[in-house]
Amino acid sequence: MPDGSSYEVRVGRGTIARFGESLRVCTDATKALLISDSVVSPLYGQRVREVLEESGFEVSDLCMPAGEENKNVDVARELWDAMSLLGFGRDDVVIALGGGVVGDMSGFVAATYMRGLDFVQVPTTLLSMVDASVGGKNGINTAIGKNLVGTFNQPIYVLDDLDFLATLPDREWTSAFAEIAKSAFLGSEHFYDWFTQNAHLLATHDIEATHDAILRCIEFKAGIVAADEQEQTGVRESLNYGHTLGHAIEALVGYGELTHGQAIAEGMRFAAYIAADAFDLSEDFVADQDILLDMLGLKSLEQLPDPEKLYEKMCSDKKTRDRSVRFVLPSRQGACETVTIPRGILMGYLESYASRKKANDKL
Amino acid sequence: MPDGSSYEVRVGRGTIARFGESLRVCTDATKALLISDSVVSPLYGQRVREVLEESGFEVSDLCMPAGEENKNVDVARELWDAMSLLGFGRDDVVIALGGGVVGDMSGFVAATYMRGLDFVQVPTTLLSMVDASVGGKNGINTAIGKNLVGTFNQPIYVLDDLDFLATLPDREWTSAFAEIAKSAFLGSEHFYDWFTQNAHLLATHDIEATHDAILRCIEFKAGIVAADEQEQTGVRESLNYGHTLGHAIEALVGYGELTHGQAIAEGMRFAAYIAADAFDLSEDFVADQDILLDMLGLKSLEQLPDPEKLYEKMCSDKKTRDRSVRFVLPSRQGACETVTIPRGILMGYLESYASRKKANDKL
Repeated sequence: MPDGSSYEVRVGRGTIARFGESLRVCTDATKALLISDSVVSPLYGQRVREVLEESGFEVSDLCMPAGEENKNVDVARELWDAMSLLGFGRDDVVIALGGGVVGDMSGFVAATYMRGLDFVQVPTTLLSMVDASVGGKNGINTAIGKNLVGTFNQPIYVLDDLDFLATLPDREWTSAFAEIAKSAFLGSEHFYDWFTQNAHLLATHDIEATHDAILRCIEFKAGIVAADEQEQTGVRESLNYGHTLGHAIEALVGYGELTHGQAIAEGMRFAAYIAADAFDLSEDFVADQDILLDMLGLKSLEQLPDPEKLYEKMCSDKKTRDRSVRFVLPSRQGACETVTIPRGILMGYLESYASRKKANDKL
Repeated sequence: MPDGSSYEVRVGRGTIARFGESLRVCTDATKALLISDSVVSPLYGQRVREVLEESGFEVSDLCMPAGEENKNVDVARELWDAMSLLGFGRDDVVIALGGGVVGDMSGFVAATYMRGLDFVQVPTTLLSMVDASVGGKNGINTAIGKNLVGTFNQPIYVLDDLDFLATLPDREWTSAFAEIAKSAFLGSEHFYDWFTQNAHLLATHDIEATHDAILRCIEFKAGIVAADEQEQTGVRESLNYGHTLGHAIEALVGYGELTHGQAIAEGMRFAAYIAADAFDLSEDFVADQDILLDMLGLKSLEQLPDPEKLYEKMCSDKKTRDRSVRFVLPSRQGACETVTIPRGILMGYLESYASRKKANDKL
């Protein structure tokens, strides 16, 4: 079991070749369970299995069906049962090989099977490398909503191999760009400057820029998480920039219609729109954010779902307290505040933001 | 969210009357979810609801079907969904009102709903008061085995009201006596002496002796748990005295046929039988243990399940590493060692122990 205080994240090209050896340093486990999905397993499952076996791990692999809709209690139950039948014990290790869905599911199962065993992340998507595989949050969906069940469970080790990105579809790149942009907007001036100068390279999937972005995002997020691992002080809440509206859009439009990144980018646009009004935020910040998001292919949505439905969705989301809705708003570059917005005011913002879209549309 | 470092356990008669006030000191929660079962809810649900409402909590109650067989993933899912529909958030509190099944289920749901919210225990059985409500372990059963899914989740507050014991059936008292005996055998000489002098009073459900036993058990267990909260150093493993064989017997005979206490008591008898051979443990210790267990109504089983099946069950239990089985064996009063026993030797002990039973039976 990890103590949650620190763990290594290895980032580079071809790092998987030495995964077995580097994992051996972190654990005495006999058995390793490799959890993957129906997309990633055929691509990389065999290779990862081999490098683990070369270092003496007794490897079992379990393949879950790909897709957010499978991140549910039924699949968790199948994994728990399979681990029992395979004889996994508390001294063994669970390895997530895949994107955010595999990472969330594996993290949850590793945290709850026999009250927790060691957990390792090998993300194969850029979004997972920059976001989900750092921070130790996991979540599964219920019939009522997204990520409503989960735990905090820090991995003991994270290995990012940039070569996995060779097979990543374009829409997955775009999705990750929203998280990178979010981190840059919230991060240091240094990070923001780097981002404005390199966004065009990221947009072409330049591998050096991507490597740099991963390191900067991990450094940024690790700082936030270290200050507030379990979301108790509010510091970590800043990472929800763009997520309040973003999650509601995702839920209403249907997972899969939009990428997670498009939904979050729209949430950032909306948050900046509120912030411009609430904090007299510089119009330049809002305009620069719009330009950078456009450059990365994160186009503004043509229309929003019904404001009333968006409000209801945001209320049922876990970031909500009472019937007001909490938003992370940029107060200036590199700083933000969390604000609770009452229903009446929020509905006003949603309607004016939506009608501005319609007006732009007619131009 | 509790930090797990310490929490208050209040023990006494009629303590429930001031539960609302005393809980108010521990939490700013608006909503309180009272989870109970179909046996306890009709007895005490309304009363507990009232004292919470008097202190300003907005109370919802959920009643799960009573019985170990309902401590499963389906019921967990129903509770998660109900909490969502009731609008519970991370700042609210979950209160378990009942025995070990309600405590385990509530603790698991509280640890995993929205990555964890505050959890309070109000045990209504003696077994829960002396054991399950201290230590922060929870577990639910799967199709494969008992407590295979769970977390470590310390409560923020535990309230024991001895008046709840007025409605406790005799077999539940007997069940608790096994845990009290276990603690006394493993505990300080002072505790053991108290136990030998008061076991006859406990057997009559004397309320002063019961109060004393609860306090002594909590003190004993808290010391062990503080030294090894997440079962990482091995110290906490000593609490499994009697449980290796006990759990296997329970699983094979069927939950409900035997009480948990009877199964554990049989496990202690067997462990002492092995220890007498392995460590030259004093015959007096073994004989005294037998006498004390008999005095508390924890009679020796007339026969054991098939040794081969017991072995298989113990291997599939989570205390097992490889195909050897780990036993906590008393090395002298107040001390124990954890020993890994290979299959051949263990089968020999099981067979000789079972045949000694048959021989005794013929006398």
